[in-house]
Amino acid sequence: MANKKMTSLGKQKSVIRELAGFGAERAKVVGPENVLNFSIGNPSVPAPKEVKEAILDIIQNETPQAVHSYSAGNGMESTRKAIADNLNKRYGTDYGADNLYMTCGAAASLNIALAALIEEPSDEVVVLAPFFPEYTVFIESQGGKMVLVEARDDMQLHAEDVEKAITKNTRAVLINTPNNPAGVIYSKEALEELAAMLEKKSKENGRPIYILSDEPYRELVLVDDAEVAWVPSIYDNTVVCYSWSKSLSLPGERIGYILVPGKVEDKDLMPAIGGAGRALGYVCAPTLMQKVIERCVDVEPDVEVYKKNRDLLFDGLTEMGYVVAKPAGAFYLFIKSPDGDSETFSDRAKEYDMLVVPGTGFGSKAFMRLSYCVDTETCEKSLPIFKEMMDKYYR
Amino acid sequence: MANKKMTSLGKQKSVIRELAGFGAERAKVVGPENVLNFSIGNPSVPAPKEVKEAILDIIQNETPQAVHSYSAGNGMESTRKAIADNLNKRYGTDYGADNLYMTCGAAASLNIALAALIEEPSDEVVVLAPFFPEYTVFIESQGGKMVLVEARDDMQLHAEDVEKAITKNTRAVLINTPNNPAGVIYSKEALEELAAMLEKKSKENGRPIYILSDEPYRELVLVDDAEVAWVPSIYDNTVVCYSWSKSLSLPGERIGYILVPGKVEDKDLMPAIGGAGRALGYVCAPTLMQKVIERCVDVEPDVEVYKKNRDLLFDGLTEMGYVVAKPAGAFYLFIKSPDGDSETFSDRAKEYDMLVVPGTGFGSKAFMRLSYCVDTETCEKSLPIFKEMMDKYYR
Repeated sequence: MANKKMTSLGKQKSVIRELAGFGAERAKVVGPENVLNFSIGNPSVPAPKEVKEAILDIIQNETPQAVHSYSAGNGMESTRKAIADNLNKRYGTDYGADNLYMTCGAAASLNIALAALIEEPSDEVVVLAPFFPEYTVFIESQGGKMVLVEARDDMQLHAEDVEKAITKNTRAVLINTPNNPAGVIYSKEALEELAAMLEKKSKENGRPIYILSDEPYRELVLVDDAEVAWVPSIYDNTVVCYSWSKSLSLPGERIGYILVPGKVEDKDLMPAIGGAGRALGYVCAPTLMQKVIERCVDVEPDVEVYKKNRDLLFDGLTEMGYVVAKPAGAFYLFIKSPDGDSETFSDRAKEYDMLVVPGTGFGSKAFMRLSYCVDTETCEKSLPIFKEMMDKYYR
Repeated sequence: MANKKMTSLGKQKSVIRELAGFGAERAKVVGPENVLNFSIGNPSVPAPKEVKEAILDIIQNETPQAVHSYSAGNGMESTRKAIADNLNKRYGTDYGADNLYMTCGAAASLNIALAALIEEPSDEVVVLAPFFPEYTVFIESQGGKMVLVEARDDMQLHAEDVEKAITKNTRAVLINTPNNPAGVIYSKEALEELAAMLEKKSKENGRPIYILSDEPYRELVLVDDAEVAWVPSIYDNTVVCYSWSKSLSLPGERIGYILVPGKVEDKDLMPAIGGAGRALGYVCAPTLMQKVIERCVDVEPDVEVYKKNRDLLFDGLTEMGYVVAKPAGAFYLFIKSPDGDSETFSDRAKEYDMLVVPGTGFGSKAFMRLSYCVDTETCEKSLPIFKEMMDKYYR
């Protein structure tokens, strides 16, 4: 009698949750240090000391009312101004506080932006595999239809592949770079090709096709010559969804933003985002965290451990003959199961108490995801297992 | 081109926001101490010292990962257990952690519960005037139809009035006691009559009609002999939506819960709530605040200022001849404009730099809302103005 769709969403089996359950059970038997858990995207790097200092200072020196009262629905002006300043400094833009809408994290950002963009059930949102599986839930919940672009083995953006998925009903293309689960960064050139194609298609359609740029990993760049392009500088009709979950290691605190640049064609988009926030029950983003962000917006994440883990795993695994999408950002590695069957690989890995997530849910059945936001020892211990598995099963 | 409904929600004029804007302008001219602002429901009592102590202790003594990592979607088990224990102690119930789902505040609680309950566009949710205006937005956003029960001058619950609004399509009755905007508390007897009527009607309909009990003001009881009944002990199919915004003065932090008692008929309701949280983009409730609540769940709010203000205003205004719904809880007073036109009264009050909210949006055009979560001096200063207005306009 409860809503059927919600019940089914609530009861849906989660491969990641099941792996976590298996890992917890095994930890009791063999000790947690002997479970090599690459299944979860919880940052292993602690929130930087500046976050702790900011919380202590705010709580000790400001009145409870100043800290804990409602903020405006779109967030504190001083926080939005600080974020705009940070972006302007880095990208040569001229955003103001009014271009920003504070949210309860990336999932909130995406749902609100989708609700503001989607009008008809026929409206389509194009998603590029491999992709974060919750995208399906978000797009459908907000009344749209997801259209999937298959991945190539390089897991990169290819405008010509995207073009084939564009129809008269395309409302937005949702991109995620650095990418979860593949760890790749889309090149500026690839984004420029995408932009040119979308401009052409928007004209044909008689309404703009938006880029929805989901960027929680923007600051997690792990390869020296890699660069995360600023999408709104490449394509005017871009809406950026951001969260500090990964960059400041604050996933539980639910704090992020939506950026609507002044150049977007539809001047009603920001009001619609305010309305969508209201309609989804978001009164405001958590106020203490808004104040923390205002003070920590310029803090750069410590990515040294992620870099070390990436190098160790990428070099080790490619040397063994594994096919790996070249990871340049985030903290994920997307590895091809040598026989193209990631589910069997994941099952076999469990026999070694090693947890890797089959890529089926991410839209790439042959590949599996390793979240290497773990301590380096776990990565080191995993290499002989990958070697043994290659020798035993796949030679 | 943005979603039309969301744009219209985002652009909707808010009487309260407009009053706030007027107040801010006048404060620049006459000084903030001379603007008598009764328009906003931001608690004037600061968050209790235990909240500050809890935050400092958690931040100083726990690791950032323990504090800021994702929690499970339904919240930390230890927090949910602490809340269940608190409720069991007070109401003689036997809830466990599994009966609770942590949320980002009352608006999130309501939207998630509504999304879990509503199936068809014909599903109706009965709301009793006077009511919090966002209920309309929430019910419609989650796909249902709001059916309004007119208020009597006592602003109380009358089961026979509600009965007339029940149809074959009624999915839930949404109640709010202590009530925003009227400050009344529904008596146990009135709730028992409602329960008996709903049991009968549920049988007739062949499916349960739920009570959705929105209780952010549960702990704000201001009259010694008043008591807030525990609705799930009166009616099995009750879902409680709670928030600490008012009781711990934490409105900006977005922390609350949904309680689904074991006795509800539909065993899929809790999974559906989990699914609805997912579909609306709520990954988890803010983790630091979940930890704070675990430590502060037994802290009782300081309501002395609210009591004092209530007495001062209620006694003073009734003596002048104003009709006031008897306020026993929350921090609102609902006053009838002597000529039944609250909008004109509110406009006239602005000439005295006094801000009161006309009741039109709350479903009661003749009445206006005073939020007396202000300092007592503001209440004292307002009395001669109410007197002068009565003499000048309404004798």
